Amino acid sequence: MAAFESELARCPIFQQMSADECQEVLNLVEHETYPAGEIILREGRSVQILWIIVHGRCEVLKATNDGTEQQLAILDPGAVFGEMSFFHPAPHSASVRSLSKVEVLRLTRENYNALEQTGSKAAHKIAASTAIVLAERLRQMDKWVCEFVERPESVNHREEWREFRSKLYSDWQF
Amino acid sequence: MAAFESELARCPIFQQMSADECQEVLNLVEHETYPAGEIILREGRSVQILWIIVHGRCEVLKATNDGTEQQLAILDPGAVFGEMSFFHPAPHSASVRSLSKVEVLRLTRENYNALEQTGSKAAHKIAASTAIVLAERLRQMDKWVCEFVERPESVNHREEWREFRSKLYSDWQF
Repeated sequence: MAAFESELARCPIFQQMSADECQEVLNLVEHETYPAGEIILREGRSVQILWIIVHGRCEVLKATNDGTEQQLAILDPGAVFGEMSFFHPAPHSASVRSLSKVEVLRLTRENYNALEQTGSKAAHKIAASTAIVLAERLRQMDKWVCEFVERPESVNHREEWREFRSKLYSDWQF
Repeated sequence: MAAFESELARCPIFQQMSADECQEVLNLVEHETYPAGEIILREGRSVQILWIIVHGRCEVLKATNDGTEQQLAILDPGAVFGEMSFFHPAPHSASVRSLSKVEVLRLTRENYNALEQTGSKAAHKIAASTAIVLAERLRQMDKWVCEFVERPESVNHREEWREFRSKLYSDWQF
């Protein structure tokens, strides 16, 4: 396990855990290695797995209307993916493909539930860390759009944004 | 407590809890009543409290550059607010003001931590429910912006959106 530790220390999921809690999670994860160019998580599929990159890099890809793929982001060691669907099943909005030989840790939802059943605080910390990162992303995206629609050329779209945003924040449903 | 139950059943935070877990949370919340027109949560302040509306309605307001206030959303009984800053302190991006006489439940971060310390699964379920609602909002907002920048008049902004989004999803930091 020692080989992972320096990479995992960068991973926000583990940063708030004690050494014992980290170990409880590590006891439940599966290790997998992919060659370069492999699809690890496929857009449109709904799988409840939390993935953590230990070595190598991945790209996040989205199919475009013209049949090509657009690269949305690059993920480095310590990065997490799958978190958007981990707590609530929904089709993945993008694919993740290995750019190099990649080593990942996979935490399945079943193993996470088992961790929760033991009463471990590690399960709680994973949920709280995910809530933090999603809140921060939502805050930043909201700010970006607000600034965008305030530009003179966006004047015709302000009302539409306000209506969408109002619905989004009023509706605490899932 | 019976008087609250019909309203709280609508609240997504409680929907995944057993009756005992609900009661554990209810034992730790503070009840407050505000007259109409009162600021309950102030934009720019950083307070880690989760609020649940039991009776009455509130509005979400944001100060605009010209010194006026813009209404972002209306919150009905069962609605939750404060969740964006509850797991990670950050200045509130909007204010919440009562539109009528309002009765709320307040769960402070200190009481939530106390609940977590008891090993209660209710604390874990609050974090997981928050992660779900934030993931769903982020997914919807992302979809809205993607459709927006695909319009012919937004052609000049696509690259800017791609760069912003790439940074947002690569960066699992807080």
